[in-house]
Amino acid sequence: MSFQPVVNAMIKDESVAAFLDQLASRASTPGGGSAAAIMGAMGAALVSMVCNLTIGKEKYAAVEDEMKALVAESENLRADLTAHVNADVQAFDQVMAAYGLPKGDDAEKAARTAAIQTALRTATEVPLACARSCAAAIALSRRAAELGNPNVISDAGVAVMAAYAGLKSAALNVYINVGALKDEAFATAARNEIEALVAAGEAATPEIYAIVRARL
Amino acid sequence: MSFQPVVNAMIKDESVAAFLDQLASRASTPGGGSAAAIMGAMGAALVSMVCNLTIGKEKYAAVEDEMKALVAESENLRADLTAHVNADVQAFDQVMAAYGLPKGDDAEKAARTAAIQTALRTATEVPLACARSCAAAIALSRRAAELGNPNVISDAGVAVMAAYAGLKSAALNVYINVGALKDEAFATAARNEIEALVAAGEAATPEIYAIVRARL
Repeated sequence: MSFQPVVNAMIKDESVAAFLDQLASRASTPGGGSAAAIMGAMGAALVSMVCNLTIGKEKYAAVEDEMKALVAESENLRADLTAHVNADVQAFDQVMAAYGLPKGDDAEKAARTAAIQTALRTATEVPLACARSCAAAIALSRRAAELGNPNVISDAGVAVMAAYAGLKSAALNVYINVGALKDEAFATAARNEIEALVAAGEAATPEIYAIVRARL
Repeated sequence: MSFQPVVNAMIKDESVAAFLDQLASRASTPGGGSAAAIMGAMGAALVSMVCNLTIGKEKYAAVEDEMKALVAESENLRADLTAHVNADVQAFDQVMAAYGLPKGDDAEKAARTAAIQTALRTATEVPLACARSCAAAIALSRRAAELGNPNVISDAGVAVMAAYAGLKSAALNVYINVGALKDEAFATAARNEIEALVAAGEAATPEIYAIVRARL
């Protein structure tokens, strides 16, 4: 794998066009893990948009409190997912750095093996946390789809698709890293959790999309 | 629907964080249509990334020509989808401007009705074109998944999920605008095309994701 260090401290401060250029380039990061986090963040942001265009309108006064609670949750989730964009790059860099450690004698080999396992554990935990947040964004998009202002309800449909894409994308990075982990108990727990998150997301996403279509 | 003019000339030149802020805000644009285009562009960018990390490596010399052809296509598609981010905002603004036209007398009412129909036609064509490009990105992601460097194959899986989310999201904006069109022939053709694109995307996406998982 071609490894090139990332110059950009914070991807979120790059322009959208520059981020897309970096994604397309032969640099290994940012890659699919950062893209997953951004899609999740877009999902959370669109839940917020539906809430923000429902709150303060007399016609939707009955759901005002629910929308206020929902936007507080979706904004927390958006901050969390935005932070994941760089966490993914750091986790990848840590794995590459560990593989690059010297392996001249047995002590070096042992230290390198331990560093790789530590880095792989982080590189499993980071996309797993991203997947958890994307699953949470899917759940929030259901409430936005059910109760939001119908004039902007399509944005709840885009929210669920973005969050679902983030979830399935983050899952791929869990699958990759978990396979090389020697801590079988941790690996099994991570595998079980990601499969449960994906299964729940696969069931919920078409339901939420259908709720949106029915309210268009 | 709350309508606020967009100050930003080009969303792609905004930072990722600023775009997410605008998406979450109570401004009607950028909304799900722009998010759909960005997800499609991310899908195309990730196809390019897989190609760029396959090209020039002796181990993958057998697919070098195919990867070079593929990256030329995915980069064209990325440019096209990036341009859609603002086209969606403009189409929305045109619809809002038409609804805002005076309707004092019969001549004004007729002019307003005609302007609304013209704007709705554009607002159907723009997400339909976005959906077409997202469908094309899905097709390209299959070639990346089948032939790309296995070390970065997960990025082909993220590509297909991003493009699929873009397709299903753009479809929602087609469904909304087509419903208010008086040109039944155009509306029917648009409905048929979007349903065919979505059905093909729904069939292809899990297949491509499975190809990726098998190569992880």
